[in-house]
Amino acid sequence: MNDRLAALRDGMAKAGVDGFLVPRSDEHLGEYVPPAGERLRWISGFTGSAGTALVLADRAVLWTDGRYTTQARQQLDPAAWELRHLVDDPPAAWMARHASGLRIGHDPWLHPAPALAKLAEAGVTLVPLHPSPLDAAWTDRPAPPAAPLRAHGVEFAGEAAADKRARLAKELDADAALLADAHSVAWLLNLRGADLAHTPMALAFAILHADATVQLFLHAPERAAAVAAHLGNGVAVAGREALLPALRALAGRRVRVDLDATPAALVEALRDGGAEVVAGEDPVRLPRACKNPAEQQGARDAQRRDAVALARFLHWLAREAPGDGLSEVAAARRLLAFRREVPGFAGESFPAIAGAGGNGAIVHYRATAASDRRIRPDECFLIDSGGQYPEGTTDVTRTVWTGPGPAPAALRARYTAVLRGHVALATARFPEGVAGPHLDAIARRPLWEMGLDYDHGTGHGIGAFLSVHEGPVSISRAAKPVPLRAGMILSDEPGFYLPGHYGIRIENLLLVREAARQPDQARPFLEFETLTLAPYSRALLDPALLAPAERAWVDAYHARVRAEIGPLLDAPARAWLEAEAAPL
Amino acid sequence: MNDRLAALRDGMAKAGVDGFLVPRSDEHLGEYVPPAGERLRWISGFTGSAGTALVLADRAVLWTDGRYTTQARQQLDPAAWELRHLVDDPPAAWMARHASGLRIGHDPWLHPAPALAKLAEAGVTLVPLHPSPLDAAWTDRPAPPAAPLRAHGVEFAGEAAADKRARLAKELDADAALLADAHSVAWLLNLRGADLAHTPMALAFAILHADATVQLFLHAPERAAAVAAHLGNGVAVAGREALLPALRALAGRRVRVDLDATPAALVEALRDGGAEVVAGEDPVRLPRACKNPAEQQGARDAQRRDAVALARFLHWLAREAPGDGLSEVAAARRLLAFRREVPGFAGESFPAIAGAGGNGAIVHYRATAASDRRIRPDECFLIDSGGQYPEGTTDVTRTVWTGPGPAPAALRARYTAVLRGHVALATARFPEGVAGPHLDAIARRPLWEMGLDYDHGTGHGIGAFLSVHEGPVSISRAAKPVPLRAGMILSDEPGFYLPGHYGIRIENLLLVREAARQPDQARPFLEFETLTLAPYSRALLDPALLAPAERAWVDAYHARVRAEIGPLLDAPARAWLEAEAAPL
Repeated sequence: MNDRLAALRDGMAKAGVDGFLVPRSDEHLGEYVPPAGERLRWISGFTGSAGTALVLADRAVLWTDGRYTTQARQQLDPAAWELRHLVDDPPAAWMARHASGLRIGHDPWLHPAPALAKLAEAGVTLVPLHPSPLDAAWTDRPAPPAAPLRAHGVEFAGEAAADKRARLAKELDADAALLADAHSVAWLLNLRGADLAHTPMALAFAILHADATVQLFLHAPERAAAVAAHLGNGVAVAGREALLPALRALAGRRVRVDLDATPAALVEALRDGGAEVVAGEDPVRLPRACKNPAEQQGARDAQRRDAVALARFLHWLAREAPGDGLSEVAAARRLLAFRREVPGFAGESFPAIAGAGGNGAIVHYRATAASDRRIRPDECFLIDSGGQYPEGTTDVTRTVWTGPGPAPAALRARYTAVLRGHVALATARFPEGVAGPHLDAIARRPLWEMGLDYDHGTGHGIGAFLSVHEGPVSISRAAKPVPLRAGMILSDEPGFYLPGHYGIRIENLLLVREAARQPDQARPFLEFETLTLAPYSRALLDPALLAPAERAWVDAYHARVRAEIGPLLDAPARAWLEAEAAPL
Repeated sequence: MNDRLAALRDGMAKAGVDGFLVPRSDEHLGEYVPPAGERLRWISGFTGSAGTALVLADRAVLWTDGRYTTQARQQLDPAAWELRHLVDDPPAAWMARHASGLRIGHDPWLHPAPALAKLAEAGVTLVPLHPSPLDAAWTDRPAPPAAPLRAHGVEFAGEAAADKRARLAKELDADAALLADAHSVAWLLNLRGADLAHTPMALAFAILHADATVQLFLHAPERAAAVAAHLGNGVAVAGREALLPALRALAGRRVRVDLDATPAALVEALRDGGAEVVAGEDPVRLPRACKNPAEQQGARDAQRRDAVALARFLHWLAREAPGDGLSEVAAARRLLAFRREVPGFAGESFPAIAGAGGNGAIVHYRATAASDRRIRPDECFLIDSGGQYPEGTTDVTRTVWTGPGPAPAALRARYTAVLRGHVALATARFPEGVAGPHLDAIARRPLWEMGLDYDHGTGHGIGAFLSVHEGPVSISRAAKPVPLRAGMILSDEPGFYLPGHYGIRIENLLLVREAARQPDQARPFLEFETLTLAPYSRALLDPALLAPAERAWVDAYHARVRAEIGPLLDAPARAWLEAEAAPL
């Protein structure tokens, strides 16, 4: 790793800069990147999905959030790297103190312009460098992905791509919109692929024109031949190298750009070419988030099928552990094997998080050959996983007690507090206009009463056979207050983590729907339909700590799990489920 | 009223503008204004404390929020005025649709620059006009207030003014700070006055210099002679006409300005004169909001004394109503008489809101000779009032049932839901970093479960012998997420309003304090100490709808009210209190 730092520093010196910024994201500014885009990992060794680094001549700093601080501490070389909290001491504040007056290089294909403007306020001089000294130093960088493309059938998407293009083009309020978010391109064109390990899409850019035609730009454009009939005449395909010229050719046009979701280099190209850049939200974000009836029904179907694999796994685990010998990696592999038996399974929606004991306290832990450890008797085991199905994307977390002894009372009290917060959010009703940040405290309240909390958001949006993390809504205090709307799918995943000891997280997916009207109600209310179907841990739950309404909700949910999943299991697994999900 | 509109329109035509903006605020941009600053009321007849108007040649539009929509509908002439909701259809959005391309006049002493910039985005041309055509048309405008000044003793303030000046000057990060908020000037100089009816302060501007000296600007500066010794050598006093020259004289200096809290005209004067305007928060806002130990103890004392007046009033009311003959105005007058008997009482902190039956549903109702009505048997009566004491400012709301019959079950269910939300907020614990918008839903949840809500914030900050509404924190989804801190005082006032029938609101003041540490707690937690002491309505409360913990909290609170207030009442009032606040 330190050779890499030295190589980058050589390049920095040659380019005449004092520092270089290394973000986690690639040219699409998304959360997940292909191996060719793993620049942060290459330079630092840190594998988390959120972070950014600044390499100076004599020090290197990496920022990440609470989900990843434990992991980063393990992965970074402390002799070379300093770790900072992305929220408590963000890069701009740190740079104002330690880098003021310096020349800081960056690759303008990897940063949105507003983020750069914010860093510039720290008193540094930002120097765009493309190709960058990092890419130059990374001599064995993998090739960009070029996996096959395929059409996402209208039976799953619920709306033909031509209809989506026409509908969105009408509301553009501009001559064209630039889409740098590959998820938006995938949704708009009902196009799927495999450029990323866990998100079934191609890494592509697009320009949607007001006449409803689309220019699609992607690496290895010959891939599009296989979906030419699906794309139709309204979609022109070109290689990624054609993007900048195409942007420069929009001279005189009003082009809508989501500045926070678009690399600065593309905005620059538009302005250089003489286009008028109109700042506006990615026009796909909101329509994509509000699932249509076909996508909603698909989500229900996908969750039900996925739940069979999880129930089989939890039953298997209950028999295996606490026999020694079973490791975290082996458990995650077994769960994947169960999922592979589910019809339509198209891969994990993210690498499963399987954390036993203290590993469970590493919020986004990923068991590797190096970190893998046995799952021991009488400890917590946290399993957070999900699957991709053409009908929908799943994401579910359960925490179990390995036994054979009983779980300690303090642990049960905390598991039950996490569950109470999870139930409080699942049963929330709220008027239209309420946004995720306003609901976050509802899920935390039972923990807060005990002086406890968790250092991550309560929930995130989820795609329809797309990313397991999807904007624009999330249930987090740090999120923009975008009002929730019917059709959105969000996770509900409070937790509690005692470093070195255990992690608890309980996660279901929730579908936002309109609530039935009540007397004297003045405006529409929303509520959640719980999509995920898996039993909570009987060994960790203390029914005495539940209010009557909470207990009734858990019993009703468990009755649903037994009724919907039980018949799909074999006799031993079903018997286990009947016991685990019996009335409290 | 319509003569006034005609006169303004004449002035607009002469000034060459198509429209003119009339805000509620005066040159200090505060919520309350003296008669000389009641421009919105003068032009429209609307008396609410939040609103703004746009007068065009052929139409006039007034915006206000949910607290005032019913009132505005009653007070505006529908032939001359259109009413819009400040949040649902804000001025900038409306103007983009209806006033694009027009020349819109405004008085730059009455608007902060960022608000004007936002309006300019609507595509209008803003034309500063000072003196304005409205002031020219308002020929019988009252003189600006010039009430006597007085020192706010350090026994109440807890910190000498010279110490405050020195402390804040050190952290200015600029050569000077301009204070346009008169509350900030009053707090900084431990100076009080009577320029407003309910906020005990003078309407003054100040410049705080990095050397801890202050320039103070106010109308009728000869008033300062009475407090010359208190102000000391570090404070130079001048008339308000000296403000612009003083700002222009700051050439070459870095001057910190809270752009949202400063009239655009003053920022313009600084820039004209050659000062460097440094955008930054009013340096007084946060220190002012975090009450020191003397102010905290003062608040407790003030609440206890104020509670005696309220208890005497509620006892009196319980005997009077449901005898017919008692009116809202008479009841409010009686409450004021009880408060006048409290030692140290220095006036109401706002005009009491006394709403019987449907009038209670007008959120910021003020009973006037025109609207006054009898308080009838078997209805709700809402009384929201407060007092100013040198020790602190109070604000309390109770809703009672006049009897003699029992309250309907649906009404009791709603009162109890409001009370449950009020208790949920009062008992909340939360980690440092949590802000008001994150707690708002906690107080609404019991109502939301019934499909009900209230169209106002849950709580606001409150001053120490200053404004009953004080920033920067408030418990409202619309507020900026400023983290709560120990020492802040906030109201906790959920409600429910059924237009035409009744209004329910229950309000206590809460003091933020550090919570005791609990096992495995990772960072400091905050909680609330309830300051207000008054019984809830036994007739409206349905104990069967309370959870055991809620019931225990109400019983403990009532025990505190009986113990702390009971001994200060005469025998009949005490007997009433013992019964009203007896264990449920």
